[in-house]
Amino acid sequence: MNIYFDNSATTAPNPLVCDAVADAMSNVYGNPSSLHRMGKTAEDFMTDCRARVAKSIGATAEEIIFTSGGTESDNTAIIGYCTANKRKGNKIITSKVEHPAVLEAFKFLEHSGFEAVYLDVDENGRVDMDHLARELTDDTLLVSVMHVNNETGTIQPIEDIASAVHAVGAIFHVDAVQSYGKIKIDVKKLGADMITVSAHKAHGPKGVGALYIRKGVRISPIIHGGGQERGLRSSTENLPAIAGFAKAADIMTENFDKSVSAMCGVKNYLKDKLTSTLPNITVNTPEDSVCSVLNVSFTGIRSEVLLHVLEDKGIYVSSGSACSSHKKGRSHVLTAMGKRDNIIDSSLRFSFCGANTLEEASYAVDVLSEQVPILRRIMR
Amino acid sequence: MNIYFDNSATTAPNPLVCDAVADAMSNVYGNPSSLHRMGKTAEDFMTDCRARVAKSIGATAEEIIFTSGGTESDNTAIIGYCTANKRKGNKIITSKVEHPAVLEAFKFLEHSGFEAVYLDVDENGRVDMDHLARELTDDTLLVSVMHVNNETGTIQPIEDIASAVHAVGAIFHVDAVQSYGKIKIDVKKLGADMITVSAHKAHGPKGVGALYIRKGVRISPIIHGGGQERGLRSSTENLPAIAGFAKAADIMTENFDKSVSAMCGVKNYLKDKLTSTLPNITVNTPEDSVCSVLNVSFTGIRSEVLLHVLEDKGIYVSSGSACSSHKKGRSHVLTAMGKRDNIIDSSLRFSFCGANTLEEASYAVDVLSEQVPILRRIMR
Repeated sequence: MNIYFDNSATTAPNPLVCDAVADAMSNVYGNPSSLHRMGKTAEDFMTDCRARVAKSIGATAEEIIFTSGGTESDNTAIIGYCTANKRKGNKIITSKVEHPAVLEAFKFLEHSGFEAVYLDVDENGRVDMDHLARELTDDTLLVSVMHVNNETGTIQPIEDIASAVHAVGAIFHVDAVQSYGKIKIDVKKLGADMITVSAHKAHGPKGVGALYIRKGVRISPIIHGGGQERGLRSSTENLPAIAGFAKAADIMTENFDKSVSAMCGVKNYLKDKLTSTLPNITVNTPEDSVCSVLNVSFTGIRSEVLLHVLEDKGIYVSSGSACSSHKKGRSHVLTAMGKRDNIIDSSLRFSFCGANTLEEASYAVDVLSEQVPILRRIMR
Repeated sequence: MNIYFDNSATTAPNPLVCDAVADAMSNVYGNPSSLHRMGKTAEDFMTDCRARVAKSIGATAEEIIFTSGGTESDNTAIIGYCTANKRKGNKIITSKVEHPAVLEAFKFLEHSGFEAVYLDVDENGRVDMDHLARELTDDTLLVSVMHVNNETGTIQPIEDIASAVHAVGAIFHVDAVQSYGKIKIDVKKLGADMITVSAHKAHGPKGVGALYIRKGVRISPIIHGGGQERGLRSSTENLPAIAGFAKAADIMTENFDKSVSAMCGVKNYLKDKLTSTLPNITVNTPEDSVCSVLNVSFTGIRSEVLLHVLEDKGIYVSSGSACSSHKKGRSHVLTAMGKRDNIIDSSLRFSFCGANTLEEASYAVDVLSEQVPILRRIMR
């Protein structure tokens, strides 16, 4: 049995997505910048794909640029906006629980002379709105807060943050990599000025992301060259991956309710069974969190140990986020939430997709119910 | 008949490359950063691919980072090195005939306070070595010169430039996007400290490139985040594209001689037949140029007109480079070579791959021999 509960790290591409990529590679290989028919065909295909990805978040095609992924989208939004609009202010604000793609972009700007503020979060990982209110000044240039946390599934009050940010005339960027396909995103309702999404977290191909840029928001590119993507992202367009992204977006939209319902079922089953079966476990994921993430601490057992025991039983999970799991050091997210060290060091992230089943969840509960007491005896 | 003579814009992916991409998408979708077996499998696969791409240019795996393509590699090398080594010097040197990915990176650095020098070239598009010698000072930080020009196929004297650059202690970057697969690249022999290659110009997938960084050369990343690629290029690794790149590298190496011989045959046939058949045509590509590019001016006929006439006959070529063909304005390459406006405005680029045949070249000669006199009569 192979149970993949690491969907927040990356998802299996949908077979139809693989087909779309293969088809574009074989049949639409022209360079969209070429003037001849093969270039035009590629360009028209790009236009179609852009409209489909745009539609999946309620945007227009003109508001979407394609990038190489979530990290580049975050960097382009944050560094690109601040570079282009230096004169409007010097303060930039984010939270302590962001993805490294946002945090490291902020550190880069801090080194360039910007004043960076990292907002506190409460015990559920939610941004401290009072802290935000205190820091929002006329000098604030940009605020970046993620929609859904990749480690805990915490949902941030994006609409409220948007209102507060806009009240001081600042620009609001949202990393929606973990909410795309799990929470319906409508750019107008959300109220953000720039939004990052990534294909491979939603059964699309790796190597492609999108950045929504509200009309009127000006940014500078961080990759310079031939002027593709309206000059905001130079590079020969990665049409096969973009075709796969568009296909993933179509499928995501079509199966949204069914998929979310399946994820909720698996998550709630796992949470209820684990909490009722095993003593001394802590659910780090708050009540009203995203359907796709369940972060649980099995106190007394180091995350890596349980992770490897689970993989021996065919269950794939994550300790912390995949993006930082290779690095030493404790989760910055759980730390910011005020979790004690023994909770952080024993935390596992189970992350789901629409294809996961209750049967898989049931098997995982059986394995954990058996293994956790054994490991705790050994480790005592 | 469909004759694709626009291989310098992009190439058709080899069917085995398409298979490698599809296989990795379906079967190795784990995130290399994940700690479990699926992550480890993906990581091991990455290591294997990196070694294969490295081998194709005589480098070691540790000297290669993967990027989203040639543009990002160029930007990472140039901006990344200059940002990390500001204190070592303030002058940066390139040539007037570089790809926009290099020229625009230089302009970006110029805006940041660096002194940028754009070297003159001779009538064949070769860098003026005297100009270089005059500009190379102790304050020179970096020099970037392309191996093969994308518009004309001119080969730069890279080894001589490397010696001159290193004599003043500066660092030398080479954009080898157009030479990869056409001229055998051995990083040690070439003498460059950083080298850019791209997969899609050599029958690999779009959306992936590599940057060779000689051991000991320190650069800063231009994309910040989770710390992948030794911290130099954060983003979930695009394993399917990297797998395709490695496959393309294997095939390129295996078929190198045969492929180059085929390209030479097609290029020389086309050049000889066109010059002997048609009056008033100018070959803008110098004698000892790369096998893959033939740039010819059909005086009196605007490039776009002939381009569209040719595509109606199933022959796909380029006016200038694909990367800048959507933009207005004359070729900066032919301009720097001192070509007259009527030569520049009537130039077409024929660019080849190992799969092109003499039969295709013969058909193209027939079409051109028929159409050029007709168009010249109409346009008179």
